[in-house]
Amino acid sequence: MSAGNRTVTVRVPATSANLGPGYDCMGLSLDLWDEVSVTTREAPGVTISVTGEGHDTVPHDESHLVVTTLRQGLVDLGHDRPDIGLDLAARNRIPHSRGLGSSAAAIASGLFLAWGLARPGEPPDRDLLLAMATGIEGHPDNAAPAILGGAQVAWLEDGQVRHIRLDVLPQVTFRAYVPDRHVPTALARHVLPADVPRADAVHQVLASTLLVTALTSAPEHLLAATRDWIHQPYRRPLMPESADLMDRLREAGVPAVISGAGPTVLAMGTAEMLDAARRVGDAGFMVDDLALGAATRLLDVG
Amino acid sequence: MSAGNRTVTVRVPATSANLGPGYDCMGLSLDLWDEVSVTTREAPGVTISVTGEGHDTVPHDESHLVVTTLRQGLVDLGHDRPDIGLDLAARNRIPHSRGLGSSAAAIASGLFLAWGLARPGEPPDRDLLLAMATGIEGHPDNAAPAILGGAQVAWLEDGQVRHIRLDVLPQVTFRAYVPDRHVPTALARHVLPADVPRADAVHQVLASTLLVTALTSAPEHLLAATRDWIHQPYRRPLMPESADLMDRLREAGVPAVISGAGPTVLAMGTAEMLDAARRVGDAGFMVDDLALGAATRLLDVG
Repeated sequence: MSAGNRTVTVRVPATSANLGPGYDCMGLSLDLWDEVSVTTREAPGVTISVTGEGHDTVPHDESHLVVTTLRQGLVDLGHDRPDIGLDLAARNRIPHSRGLGSSAAAIASGLFLAWGLARPGEPPDRDLLLAMATGIEGHPDNAAPAILGGAQVAWLEDGQVRHIRLDVLPQVTFRAYVPDRHVPTALARHVLPADVPRADAVHQVLASTLLVTALTSAPEHLLAATRDWIHQPYRRPLMPESADLMDRLREAGVPAVISGAGPTVLAMGTAEMLDAARRVGDAGFMVDDLALGAATRLLDVG
Repeated sequence: MSAGNRTVTVRVPATSANLGPGYDCMGLSLDLWDEVSVTTREAPGVTISVTGEGHDTVPHDESHLVVTTLRQGLVDLGHDRPDIGLDLAARNRIPHSRGLGSSAAAIASGLFLAWGLARPGEPPDRDLLLAMATGIEGHPDNAAPAILGGAQVAWLEDGQVRHIRLDVLPQVTFRAYVPDRHVPTALARHVLPADVPRADAVHQVLASTLLVTALTSAPEHLLAATRDWIHQPYRRPLMPESADLMDRLREAGVPAVISGAGPTVLAMGTAEMLDAARRVGDAGFMVDDLALGAATRLLDVG
């Protein structure tokens, strides 16, 4: 296909993985979006304009995660000029390194933009793009809800990504408490032990079982269903303020978890449950009320 | 209330706990029943008649589990003569010590019979009877599906029994493979290690999450959803023939698990999945095709 000057825009949602007991297999998208546009040009290289989150920290060259992913996507999707010149403009609202899926969002952005350039007019093959994103990120926890929207159970089986959508009750909404502190995901993984007490594993199995039921049909069980034994306890020292806020929310009856690898705290529940959260002190956190998010969208393909 | 000569009959279903990944929290009832009648009489003591399973092994005196439970139930439910004379007749179809909930069935029988004698005409308070049964058995895994019917997630929270019914798709049915060998539950618990690899716990969380979804809406995932890492592998040496049959069923694509603490193997799935099981050799096992069971019922209260 010919290069020409083309512009493609993508909107990709924040995501929260784990949801407490659903460690490494459950996640959901949130109504908080990055919007990224790319315009092709004849001159090689890349220009990058970033507003919002990360504008002063992300690289402004070919090493930008959206750009590396976009170029890999162009190769994989058979674009005839994967080294084409690119002007990238990102309006970022998803906080970085806070457990809200900003990396998965960048990867999904790059791949959807590549799709828009390589396959103009074709609806995105979301399963293919999810497989590509999972290959880059190593796991589908955030990529699945980002690319497919809603709440997803996602896992790798024989190298294939599998996923099941959970139909979350419309009365369940979310509140993110975002601290100023960053926690690198690699560090958050490093503190997890090789073995866990069997009793903890058994508790975790109950909770994850409940979580599916609570989100889809029995929200009154969300508090019991969001307990975790196998990752959050070990990560407390990395994010003491978040762990403390989570504890105080839960003591007030608010289902609350560490979002992804932290340190954002995610509360979820009915309006009544989240009302109770308003009585819990949250100084030092940016608070954002959010609905369940939709899937990544390609916009204005021109 | 007055004693008189009264007869009460109860039908109580077999149950299968764990279902693979749902260790210690999930169970379901099966359409296989014990039927137990009791008639009161003035003369103290007890007579016991048992036909079917266990007729040559269960005690025929006050130490019979139905009798001890019934008498405790009479005390707890305020019957004025808990030491009343009893003629008990049991027609047992649930195999003993095979992982099909025969103990829970005996306990439920005793308690429902006690209810029928102590509260004639009143519909059984199933939550109360479940709490009593759980107090006797120590856990609600089998008692909950036996007393409430269907598939149940059940757990203890602050000393209270909680439960959620799973609406199993009607096209999912069951096949029990019952070997001649017994495995005492206490021994089956003894072989479990204190710690498990975290990776196994993570796999288990995924599987239990899938199991809820697979049973209620996505049976195509039942094979992946019935894998277990935290109890079955450790119990293989106690029941090698059952473990081998389970493996061969699963290799043929049939979702199969060890029922409860074993050694019965339970296959579950759509008609197509269970058809595939017919090509798997099952010599040495008694095979029984079963539907999901209903709740314990009091009959012929006279």
